[in-house]
Amino acid sequence: MSREQRAQARSRIQKGDLSRTVAKQRADFNSVFERHPLGNDIGLVPIVIGGVPALDVKVSGADGDGDGVILFLHGGGYVVGTPRSGANVAAPLARQTGLRVVALDYRLAPEAPFPAAVDDALAAYKELLDSGREVFIAGDSAGGGLALATILAARREDLPLPPAVVVFSPWVDLTLSGASMDARGDFDPLFSRAHMEAYAEHYLAGHDPKDELASPLLADLTGLPPLLIQVGTAEVLLDDSLQLAARAAEQEVDVSLDVVAGAPHVYPYMLGLMDEAETALARAAQWLTQRGFGKRTA
Amino acid sequence: MSREQRAQARSRIQKGDLSRTVAKQRADFNSVFERHPLGNDIGLVPIVIGGVPALDVKVSGADGDGDGVILFLHGGGYVVGTPRSGANVAAPLARQTGLRVVALDYRLAPEAPFPAAVDDALAAYKELLDSGREVFIAGDSAGGGLALATILAARREDLPLPPAVVVFSPWVDLTLSGASMDARGDFDPLFSRAHMEAYAEHYLAGHDPKDELASPLLADLTGLPPLLIQVGTAEVLLDDSLQLAARAAEQEVDVSLDVVAGAPHVYPYMLGLMDEAETALARAAQWLTQRGFGKRTA
Repeated sequence: MSREQRAQARSRIQKGDLSRTVAKQRADFNSVFERHPLGNDIGLVPIVIGGVPALDVKVSGADGDGDGVILFLHGGGYVVGTPRSGANVAAPLARQTGLRVVALDYRLAPEAPFPAAVDDALAAYKELLDSGREVFIAGDSAGGGLALATILAARREDLPLPPAVVVFSPWVDLTLSGASMDARGDFDPLFSRAHMEAYAEHYLAGHDPKDELASPLLADLTGLPPLLIQVGTAEVLLDDSLQLAARAAEQEVDVSLDVVAGAPHVYPYMLGLMDEAETALARAAQWLTQRGFGKRTA
Repeated sequence: MSREQRAQARSRIQKGDLSRTVAKQRADFNSVFERHPLGNDIGLVPIVIGGVPALDVKVSGADGDGDGVILFLHGGGYVVGTPRSGANVAAPLARQTGLRVVALDYRLAPEAPFPAAVDDALAAYKELLDSGREVFIAGDSAGGGLALATILAARREDLPLPPAVVVFSPWVDLTLSGASMDARGDFDPLFSRAHMEAYAEHYLAGHDPKDELASPLLADLTGLPPLLIQVGTAEVLLDDSLQLAARAAEQEVDVSLDVVAGAPHVYPYMLGLMDEAETALARAAQWLTQRGFGKRTA
């Protein structure tokens, strides 16, 4: 009943009122996404990594301390969301990969505009690298854009890059140039262009949206690690993914793209409600682990 | 050694001399691709299906007669190639999916121009449907375009569509409009625009290249089954895949795209020489079987 599940998933979401204060937006977001149960096997341990607060996502029974770690960057337009909300995706990734996952509590706008989030993610990435493990990066929505920005920032400093990166419905174009930004405004149950404009305004605080650390779609992607992109079509952000996949391919990056028709923004959050969420997370976990464990130097 | 394997794979290929006769082109193609060993577990049994000759690709030890069958359409620009050459991809698909695979000996141009290949593939598809099994379709290069054309032709006749379709480096735009057609002419070790023009001229024999059964990229893809596209970047045909993925997504088709940087045209033919060929075929097999076995109606 997959088409029906997709429609039901869309019907559970509604566009947020843009007139709400940031505090109210955060409270509303958290009231939904911090309450979704993660499973009794998941423990969340507060840690500090690179000077940045984070949640260590622990799966009972797994050692979670093997050859690799995933730095997970939650979504929320750089304005809302927490590592706990991101754990809705990070926890199943931890469970299915057997890897340790660190969900980062990077600073949010408007209090901490660009490039605070990138600075925090890079600092955490560096400390994780120092552990000697392979460090994967994954993220959803703004966290997907941030994942790529972090890699670009790491490249500038000649740091080792992750073996692979997974992004779910990434927001990679803060210039909002994609045709889907308007064409899918009615189909997207969550966002319209106005929502993305509001997020971008908070995050950029006047900074140039064409900065590649804000809009990684515009960067030279040459030399980036293999990239998995998962997206639905009920998204104003669809073109961010389609364009990112095409640009990565043209710039000689191994890239895989999975598009689920009619699925809403970051549909893996719908785990338990939509079969595609489970399929997507299983695929992401398999794709990641196939690329890790020393294979980066093989 | 993956980057090196990709470079070695490219170095094994050279562009064919365009002045050769069609007979010589076929002989040269077959001398390479009909001799590549398939493995001792593979048997090829000549059959006729829908009035069209074919090879039944049998895997010893597998019953190969389960819930589904894959109709496999080989590549070769609609001018060269045989079911035996296609078996280099069809046999590992049979082995890894556990499904029966029928590799079709559809008629080739210039002797049998468009739409002979579509007619043959549709006839075979119909007879396979009559068996009551689920019928998947897969194909490489021109066979990938033909796979989609067959589905479009089936849709016109209100036939049940396959649960899923896999295409490897599909040729779906006989108008040759992709930027990669020129931009990647030097990087592609096998083809240039001139090669594709020659194939198109033989196949179309004056027919409009914009016909959707010749260029499925231009069709309304709405309602098509889930589509997996695998392609390399050392291909003038790269844009056929990128554009097909984007168009499928925009028209609400579930689509997955896997791009391997530096890999040549239909790199799964490089099984045993390039790790990515094995990865791609395993992924294609898993992707297909996840979508079959009655799940189409679930």
